[in-house]
Amino acid sequence: MPTILGQNQYGKAENRVVRITRDGDTHHIKDLNVSVALSGDMDEVHYSGSNANVLPTDTTKNTVFAFAKEHGIESAEQFGIHLARHFVTSQEPIGTARIRIEEYAWERIATSDANSRFIGADDVKHSFVRKGQETRTTQITYDGQKWEVVSGLKDLTVMNSTNSEFWGYAKDRYTTLKEAYDRILATDVSARWRYNWTDDEERMPNWEKSYEQARKHMLQAFAETYSLSLQQTLYQMGSRIIESRSEIDEIRFSLPNNHHFLVDLEPFGLENDNEVYFAADRPYGLIEATVLRDGAEQRIPVDMTNL
Amino acid sequence: MPTILGQNQYGKAENRVVRITRDGDTHHIKDLNVSVALSGDMDEVHYSGSNANVLPTDTTKNTVFAFAKEHGIESAEQFGIHLARHFVTSQEPIGTARIRIEEYAWERIATSDANSRFIGADDVKHSFVRKGQETRTTQITYDGQKWEVVSGLKDLTVMNSTNSEFWGYAKDRYTTLKEAYDRILATDVSARWRYNWTDDEERMPNWEKSYEQARKHMLQAFAETYSLSLQQTLYQMGSRIIESRSEIDEIRFSLPNNHHFLVDLEPFGLENDNEVYFAADRPYGLIEATVLRDGAEQRIPVDMTNL
Amino acid sequence: MPTILGQNQYGKAENRVVRITRDGDTHHIKDLNVSVALSGDMDEVHYSGSNANVLPTDTTKNTVFAFAKEHGIESAEQFGIHLARHFVTSQEPIGTARIRIEEYAWERIATSDANSRFIGADDVKHSFVRKGQETRTTQITYDGQKWEVVSGLKDLTVMNSTNSEFWGYAKDRYTTLKEAYDRILATDVSARWRYNWTDDEERMPNWEKSYEQARKHMLQAFAETYSLSLQQTLYQMGSRIIESRSEIDEIRFSLPNNHHFLVDLEPFGLENDNEVYFAADRPYGLIEATVLRDGAEQRIPVDMTNL
Amino acid sequence: MPTILGQNQYGKAENRVVRITRDGDTHHIKDLNVSVALSGDMDEVHYSGSNANVLPTDTTKNTVFAFAKEHGIESAEQFGIHLARHFVTSQEPIGTARIRIEEYAWERIATSDANSRFIGADDVKHSFVRKGQETRTTQITYDGQKWEVVSGLKDLTVMNSTNSEFWGYAKDRYTTLKEAYDRILATDVSARWRYNWTDDEERMPNWEKSYEQARKHMLQAFAETYSLSLQQTLYQMGSRIIESRSEIDEIRFSLPNNHHFLVDLEPFGLENDNEVYFAADRPYGLIEATVLRDGAEQRIPVDMTNL
Repeated sequence: MPTILGQNQYGKAENRVVRITRDGDTHHIKDLNVSVALSGDMDEVHYSGSNANVLPTDTTKNTVFAFAKEHGIESAEQFGIHLARHFVTSQEPIGTARIRIEEYAWERIATSDANSRFIGADDVKHSFVRKGQETRTTQITYDGQKWEVVSGLKDLTVMNSTNSEFWGYAKDRYTTLKEAYDRILATDVSARWRYNWTDDEERMPNWEKSYEQARKHMLQAFAETYSLSLQQTLYQMGSRIIESRSEIDEIRFSLPNNHHFLVDLEPFGLENDNEVYFAADRPYGLIEATVLRDGAEQRIPVDMTNL
Repeated sequence: MPTILGQNQYGKAENRVVRITRDGDTHHIKDLNVSVALSGDMDEVHYSGSNANVLPTDTTKNTVFAFAKEHGIESAEQFGIHLARHFVTSQEPIGTARIRIEEYAWERIATSDANSRFIGADDVKHSFVRKGQETRTTQITYDGQKWEVVSGLKDLTVMNSTNSEFWGYAKDRYTTLKEAYDRILATDVSARWRYNWTDDEERMPNWEKSYEQARKHMLQAFAETYSLSLQQTLYQMGSRIIESRSEIDEIRFSLPNNHHFLVDLEPFGLENDNEVYFAADRPYGLIEATVLRDGAEQRIPVDMTNL
Repeated sequence: MPTILGQNQYGKAENRVVRITRDGDTHHIKDLNVSVALSGDMDEVHYSGSNANVLPTDTTKNTVFAFAKEHGIESAEQFGIHLARHFVTSQEPIGTARIRIEEYAWERIATSDANSRFIGADDVKHSFVRKGQETRTTQITYDGQKWEVVSGLKDLTVMNSTNSEFWGYAKDRYTTLKEAYDRILATDVSARWRYNWTDDEERMPNWEKSYEQARKHMLQAFAETYSLSLQQTLYQMGSRIIESRSEIDEIRFSLPNNHHFLVDLEPFGLENDNEVYFAADRPYGLIEATVLRDGAEQRIPVDMTNL
Repeated sequence: MPTILGQNQYGKAENRVVRITRDGDTHHIKDLNVSVALSGDMDEVHYSGSNANVLPTDTTKNTVFAFAKEHGIESAEQFGIHLARHFVTSQEPIGTARIRIEEYAWERIATSDANSRFIGADDVKHSFVRKGQETRTTQITYDGQKWEVVSGLKDLTVMNSTNSEFWGYAKDRYTTLKEAYDRILATDVSARWRYNWTDDEERMPNWEKSYEQARKHMLQAFAETYSLSLQQTLYQMGSRIIESRSEIDEIRFSLPNNHHFLVDLEPFGLENDNEVYFAADRPYGLIEATVLRDGAEQRIPVDMTNL
């Protein structure tokens, strides 16, 4: 046979599970999008169509919903760990499980209102508005021995309206760009960071706190960096996390440079003193890099977009 | 000629203007998406291609950016009023201008942090993160005499995890639905409300405060209503606004019923006591209605989706 | 009560029904997205939450799937007529039904291949590839007496690489556009046309043939018009349909002007003789108009976008 | 310094270039979306913000448009090869260039029409309608010595309405799926294939013909395979290409299983003899695998989605 099978994986993608926990009248929500990918001894299903080793994707879906009941959802990471362990340890042909999860945050609707004429307003503890902003992500991989947890976020849109410059760059025949000494710097942050927790024997990070802190450090580094290039800002965001969070060894960023072009108002007899910008769609700069703890292995794949 | 021209309009759509205002080191952002539609004496351009009466859409774009400088952007509504007045009063062939604006909200990145080792953190007043959640909208129409302002929002996702029932409905041969006595009620609020301000002689509403208050009342009515149907909740949301905001006479809602189906865990020997839900995409219920101040004219078009 | 209920409607949106018809080994597909909107005596469900008059949206969904079996799907229009008639005639509180349908076209995968080494290749009559291009649409409205059928399409992207000019337009203080004597004209056609069939006593149009012919005439008019403005092209597309199809009385277009800007290559010492263009996203011109048979009533709502 | 920089790359993404070639009155279109990613000696821009080694992304954009003039666009692959070679050979700090291109196909609008009353209809050779269906893709990588070309397509939606079964699978506590002996098999094909051309000394493949043939073989293999699992179909699609096209050594597929569920019509007293299906959105099965020429190295990254 001149053709052979290479890497392969399968499972049910995008299981939209919502878990409500009731603490008296006070409700809590976890809202996840869970994708399962299993791999192992799967040659036959590709070569002959024999499904003997194939746990149906429908079963992987059922397992997601059943586990939301059996284990609850303490965090996306912990939930993914339960799922990955289950598939690898319970199905002999499955060697590796990879669980990817997106999490959508909700906040409570504020109903206590001194001026409200409506009764009972401050008693509502089951009403929520979706927070918007970033989608939190995690990817749990387990091969029966070692864990790899890569968490992150995407679509966190940020802007500095000053403290950004761009000059002193290389020039060639096709260079027409003018140097900028005060520009807008804006991007949609996509980031994935890898935890150095790999073994059940080790103490597990506090996933919720770690996420909150990593996000805070990234945002603050973005705000506080006087930027000579988006690459410099990226590196500051990454190193701030590496320095502040000992549980994280590696972080990969994909940062579009959301161009805001200063509009030329001279034809209309107007001066534009960094006031009026055109927010462009395409094309955009795309800056991507990995920041590592010194000595750590680079393991996060470089491509976070599928352009 | 057996064929004639009916209603027509033209202009530049989706002008993405960002306006920065600097108050010392403290910056402020307005981030808009502005669409211009002009109509009037435009038969010839359709019949013969003569552009004599056609102000180019490129010019309408330039005007949006120039006005962001000349008038600033106090609110989306006020900005739209400046634009609409300009086109109608300065171009003889143009009888009516309609300006539609989407506004994206930003909040400041919090950098003051007692625990931060980084210097100057609390001095950053030019760093922002996009708020996410709803998109604010407005539509300004002016015919040279009367104004119509229809503001609103879209994509504000809300959920009540209890206090929703659905029973006692009509049944026919195709009815299989089981009655529900405790269900999740979730929707993406799209709302448009019409102001009763129509004349330059009248006192203009405070557009920013009115938006904030209308949004708050909608959310609180959603949270506080014990719901027997999404229609009932919709009506409570609308009447709360009409009763609370005298400047608003009419509101139109388009509310998808974002179904959260209780997952049947019995096959796995598990009970699902309103804990685990499957969040479905399609199909969804779609509930649409207008709520009016008694005596007001119904003027907002009924279709807010283009399904 | 200071607040009253205005127009309202409800139903299940986006029911994705696929109907396979087997003619021996030869299969046929109809692939629809069906949205139901019902209105009538629905005050109580809004005011008090009483669902006594409410046929559940779940039932409207079931009806769509059951009718695909009971009536088949001869055309989207005929299917919508069956549904609308059913809801209005079988449920006393329902006065009006509006059915909106999107249809996705498929074409057969060509397997007969003289060079193929694979057996039976030309026997495959059950394999399809989705056609892409436009989405066909229809909207059926029935109030128990009269029918209104508005069919159309959206997202049909077309381009003329020459035979388009734009000059002789009005100018004001904000005009900077240069006149163009040979430009690209490109748009995504969205069109809706209204049939003059309104009564069960009248002979119904051949919906499939009418769609195919209206589409052909639009495309040919687009191709054959030497254009001095997109408005002129629009009018030619509309009048060609009105003149060619006696069953259609009115057509509404929404045509974005998909700008293709000639790239300035002079800084690189190159001439750009209408060869290299930048295809821009936003902003874009938006040209909208209704074309009518003389004497016909204008009934299609003017807004086909929800910018 | 406890933190270091890992892999990094930058460039301008999504340059939308349209190239018109005029052969007398007959025009030809190439419509591309080009993304440039450069890497090399870029530590300083990350560490200190020095842009001395950074050719601006704006320049990479200009180069795309200038090259469309200077070299024309014979094929997406050939165009990417010109670009990659230029960046690596002309900028000393740049070690590797990766060019990703999406291509959108257009077909001519048929205007010759024996029944047309309109003059000159068959002379129109500059009018096009976008083909829809799949997006063609390619990725060119060059490090100054070796080439890697990975071409493919995405969003090619296909369906077999019979000749698909699924049974004999593994079962566990969470398995409820019923075996299927005649089901719909539908997917959106995403595929990337790697060419074994790596060296300027070797004869380059005919990129246009190779694409057309690979696409044809994939579609025919999909149609002609009697499928016991989507994995089996995937393998047939891949091996058909490997066997038929000697210039291709490896192919990676990502195939969602677009579930079409047979609707239960029994509650309505109706039988559903594989006639009426509900086309579901999420969740979906996701089947991914690489198919290789025996002895070839597996080089295409396994993740084609960013779930």
